[in-house]
Amino acid sequence: MTTGRRAGLDVGGTKCLGVVLDEHGAVIAEHREPTPKGPESIIDTLAGLARRLADAVGGFDTLGVGVPGLVTRNGVLRAAPNLVDIIDFRVGQLLGERLDMKVEVDNDATCAAAAEWKAGEGVGEDEFVMVTLGTGIGGGLVSGGRLMRGVNGFAGEIGHMVVDPDGPPCPCGRRGCWERYASGSGLGRLAREAAEGKRLGNVVALAGGDPDAVRGEHVQQAALAGDVEALEVIHAFGRWVALGLVNLTNVLDPGLFVLGGGLAGSGDLYLGAIREHFTELLYAPTLRPHPRLAFASLGERAGAYGAALLAEVH
Amino acid sequence: MTTGRRAGLDVGGTKCLGVVLDEHGAVIAEHREPTPKGPESIIDTLAGLARRLADAVGGFDTLGVGVPGLVTRNGVLRAAPNLVDIIDFRVGQLLGERLDMKVEVDNDATCAAAAEWKAGEGVGEDEFVMVTLGTGIGGGLVSGGRLMRGVNGFAGEIGHMVVDPDGPPCPCGRRGCWERYASGSGLGRLAREAAEGKRLGNVVALAGGDPDAVRGEHVQQAALAGDVEALEVIHAFGRWVALGLVNLTNVLDPGLFVLGGGLAGSGDLYLGAIREHFTELLYAPTLRPHPRLAFASLGERAGAYGAALLAEVH
Repeated sequence: MTTGRRAGLDVGGTKCLGVVLDEHGAVIAEHREPTPKGPESIIDTLAGLARRLADAVGGFDTLGVGVPGLVTRNGVLRAAPNLVDIIDFRVGQLLGERLDMKVEVDNDATCAAAAEWKAGEGVGEDEFVMVTLGTGIGGGLVSGGRLMRGVNGFAGEIGHMVVDPDGPPCPCGRRGCWERYASGSGLGRLAREAAEGKRLGNVVALAGGDPDAVRGEHVQQAALAGDVEALEVIHAFGRWVALGLVNLTNVLDPGLFVLGGGLAGSGDLYLGAIREHFTELLYAPTLRPHPRLAFASLGERAGAYGAALLAEVH
Repeated sequence: MTTGRRAGLDVGGTKCLGVVLDEHGAVIAEHREPTPKGPESIIDTLAGLARRLADAVGGFDTLGVGVPGLVTRNGVLRAAPNLVDIIDFRVGQLLGERLDMKVEVDNDATCAAAAEWKAGEGVGEDEFVMVTLGTGIGGGLVSGGRLMRGVNGFAGEIGHMVVDPDGPPCPCGRRGCWERYASGSGLGRLAREAAEGKRLGNVVALAGGDPDAVRGEHVQQAALAGDVEALEVIHAFGRWVALGLVNLTNVLDPGLFVLGGGLAGSGDLYLGAIREHFTELLYAPTLRPHPRLAFASLGERAGAYGAALLAEVH
């Protein structure tokens, strides 16, 4: 007998979040645990989370897991830069054996895309791109009314589009990846560069007086208080966000971008700059409708919510 | 009664090429005319070409047209940088009225993708990208076993991905578009820059002694003859080609790139450099199978061949 209930787990760098949806898509249970180190401990944590959620609601029909990194079409996490000792982690198989049920696995940004597509800003859109602006940049793609995964399952690694081959080094080993500019860490880097030569005094003060300690949130805080130099950094940052969105528009021609991740919370701060530079950088801007820009409505739950939909969304 | 015969017309900057395919996909008629100026003359030429092809084979069932530029989902060419006086050209409707039959219309690189997908290097591939390297760069995308067109029909404008926002100006009005580097005109530009300071003597000699007259074909010619300086330019050029292919791989994760257009004819010259830099620039290159690189097998007929398939390929 089916219950209509679907569970989803989202493995983050610091915490694992689990939710259960009822047959209408409402979140009827939620729980979180710190993310442990190493694959065996992660399976333990996820199994515990799943059992706890099952106990809370009286069981569920399907289970999905979202994980950060490159996920193959058969649910193997090939590598995850933000998880320790993870390589070729057969998370779906191992968790499935433990719980004696089928477990769907996909990339966390792809899960977030599924969530926004079915229950958030992307409802009704056949062509849209989810962009998660956090420490790095993740992506999930919907095209032709289905999730795009590519031949290996690795589609949507949009943060590693190279936007300047001689740009700053990226932890991925290359230079000038989009996420070096348009993520939270990119915002901090732009601010630290601007802080050289004794500029950006208010932002540096918020970072305790040390220019090297400036992070994205200090710029946001000063900009929200109206600091002109901080607003200039935000403007430059918005241009880099726009550049990547433009490149994705040239390739994919989506009707909508949904911006999520930690930076989306203060998205109104950037929206004007993004729109201005989007028009400046787009090919043939006057000959086409521009894609809509929206901020994710499912917040930090998007990954787990979307993981809960993996069994039914293709 | 259906004949199984399908006709396709390809509108190029200098000539219009028409073909008829039999029920097995063999080209059984072919004809070309110079591309005239202005929309009415183009309709006249296409109608004449279609009638001539019909007379040659005794009629056909379907007709498709490939045109350069932004084509809407209902067959309107919004703008074509390489055709004079073309804006909002309802080529499908006008030609259809003239010939009293339905006419399918799509972007020429999308047509080339359809052709390679159904009858060329892409047969059997569900995820591939067609890249036409000519004066500019065009693109056609297949994902999930169907042509991707985006919400407006403008997907695949890959030549205008910005790979350096402070790069050289592009006729499209922006700076640092991929096709400023990785097209035939990009190769010429790289060579002219290298020719400054009295370098690249053999290439300049092939251009009649004038460094400003250097074009891509002079570099190719010198490189094929073993000129070391020309080969260095080819190497740098291959890195730019690789950069765009890497960005497309990060976004789309295709199993195959088919390289077509004028530069594909001497593709073996670049292939080594492209492969080397592809591995250097790709995110997580050791954790994934690399997409196959192939050169288009349908040559200059690809656009017309693919246009002939538009009625049946979705």
